Amino acid sequence: MDTKKRILTGDRTTGKLHLGHYVGSLQSRVELQDEYDEFILLADVQALTTHFAEPSLINSSIYDVAMDNLSVGLDPEKVTIVQQSQVSSIAELTIFYSMLVTVNQLRHNPTIKTEAKNYGYADLTYGFLGYPVSQTADITFCNADLVPVGEDQVPHIELARKIVRKFNELYGTSIVEPQVKLSKVGRLSGLDGNAKMGKSMGNAIYLSDSPQAVWERVRNAVTDPARITVKIPGHPEICNVYKYHCVFNQGEVSNIGEMCKNAAIGCVACKKLLNGALNALLDPIREKRHYYEEHRNEVRDLIISGTAKANAVGNANLQDIKEKMHVII
Amino acid sequence: MDTKKRILTGDRTTGKLHLGHYVGSLQSRVELQDEYDEFILLADVQALTTHFAEPSLINSSIYDVAMDNLSVGLDPEKVTIVQQSQVSSIAELTIFYSMLVTVNQLRHNPTIKTEAKNYGYADLTYGFLGYPVSQTADITFCNADLVPVGEDQVPHIELARKIVRKFNELYGTSIVEPQVKLSKVGRLSGLDGNAKMGKSMGNAIYLSDSPQAVWERVRNAVTDPARITVKIPGHPEICNVYKYHCVFNQGEVSNIGEMCKNAAIGCVACKKLLNGALNALLDPIREKRHYYEEHRNEVRDLIISGTAKANAVGNANLQDIKEKMHVII
Repeated sequence: MDTKKRILTGDRTTGKLHLGHYVGSLQSRVELQDEYDEFILLADVQALTTHFAEPSLINSSIYDVAMDNLSVGLDPEKVTIVQQSQVSSIAELTIFYSMLVTVNQLRHNPTIKTEAKNYGYADLTYGFLGYPVSQTADITFCNADLVPVGEDQVPHIELARKIVRKFNELYGTSIVEPQVKLSKVGRLSGLDGNAKMGKSMGNAIYLSDSPQAVWERVRNAVTDPARITVKIPGHPEICNVYKYHCVFNQGEVSNIGEMCKNAAIGCVACKKLLNGALNALLDPIREKRHYYEEHRNEVRDLIISGTAKANAVGNANLQDIKEKMHVII
Repeated sequence: MDTKKRILTGDRTTGKLHLGHYVGSLQSRVELQDEYDEFILLADVQALTTHFAEPSLINSSIYDVAMDNLSVGLDPEKVTIVQQSQVSSIAELTIFYSMLVTVNQLRHNPTIKTEAKNYGYADLTYGFLGYPVSQTADITFCNADLVPVGEDQVPHIELARKIVRKFNELYGTSIVEPQVKLSKVGRLSGLDGNAKMGKSMGNAIYLSDSPQAVWERVRNAVTDPARITVKIPGHPEICNVYKYHCVFNQGEVSNIGEMCKNAAIGCVACKKLLNGALNALLDPIREKRHYYEEHRNEVRDLIISGTAKANAVGNANLQDIKEKMHVII
């Protein structure tokens, strides 16, 4: 057990998780849970960086995110679910690391720039600017070896590695320098044609959505605009629904693409096929989620016991770090 | 006991304390220790903001600063000595507060600007920029009512009050909004003519200095430059030694001033009088310090028990705050 490499991953608790999360992250968490020791962070403190004025949303999302993770097939016997706000060693490490990063390094981070722009921030908060520092603490409090991320998060892991190297050099600590584990599948576009599926885009298909809600999204999907009637051959390469078949209906996708190009299938029928594929994926997830919704206390206990384990690991590491730093008595 | 108002004060652990600290802060700590419940912070985390590359200095200074505080007459039965790095609730509150302060608010803080210039920082670290946020956590983790500070620190307390008001409003918490308690005596100038006595100025008379070391500083003090011989009347108003008589020799100062103006006393004799006054102050401090140096374990126990008390207070407050913020489970 202890010889397994540790993965740190997680989600900001700012709402339920959707298919974009599933494709970008949850799916591989499930695949990797036997080979790795996975820590899944319910990032409620990082959620505050953007949602500090919505504490109730953050609170309900702690359960939602935990249930979403469990529902996709993460095994509570194998993974450790951790509530970030209850792990003080993360906060303490964040403060220590903050001495080794300059304000300009953070300001010039491309992802911070893009996100700040997306959120429409004219004036960054101190906490938002520093979230890569806090993320470095998330990763290292438990000495995670690997962090599965998408392309856009790579600069953050580079910064984390830089901080860790500087810290180890300065204090003679032996904090593990985390490695990037690039996600296989990148970003999931929206069925509405938007480049990304996102909560804030209003185009998300949530893992907990009802079949009706899923069909609503699929039915309204934007397809090849040139295909005004069924008789006109389609162009799958520009069709959002086709993209989804590529991801969620791999067995039938080449056949569907051919039929589309040959005008042998209409958009409505094609959407119904996609709807079927999505529900084939979502049905067992819904079933598991239903179980956890009925057993909320079980979820609570899993979070509490996972967090206790994380605290034990984090406090031991922090104690060692403080001794090396000489901030002891 | 519980009806007493609480004061939070303290010192960065970046070296021994000197007469400037005594006049600006320690003296009034001693005067106020009966009327108030005093928390004395050994600010070893804040020390890292400027001295992160000197962990050994910070560590030895934890003891030095504690001993200096005890030696001037703070009663360990009355005050609570707290090691900042061992109080995780301070770190956790710092992170929460960091969501409510903008980077520009911190950048435009006049004291931050001046200090950054003094330290010669071209590029601020994230931790240095945020030290007023961390200081807000220092003050509020124990719901301190009063913070004794000099003029230059008033902007920090104003910021702390702003953060606390915003936090309370947003989450319905009842964190005490701290009040400034302006120090009676301002800055102590250096005997060398420098506007400030400071470790980095090379002009400090440390509370733990030997009589020889004190005389060395006094002997070399810059006096009225126009007074080339004893026979020329002096100008006390521009004399550094006279300024020190005003502070440390209040009983004799008017007499000494008159003698100087009448050329009835020479500079060397005047310096000897000051030296006597300083040693009259420092002798009992040296004696107490000697005791604590011989009983280092006693100092250690005081820090440990004070820190334990602070953790009990801080953890209870933090738990309440987290409940109000809904970052609980």
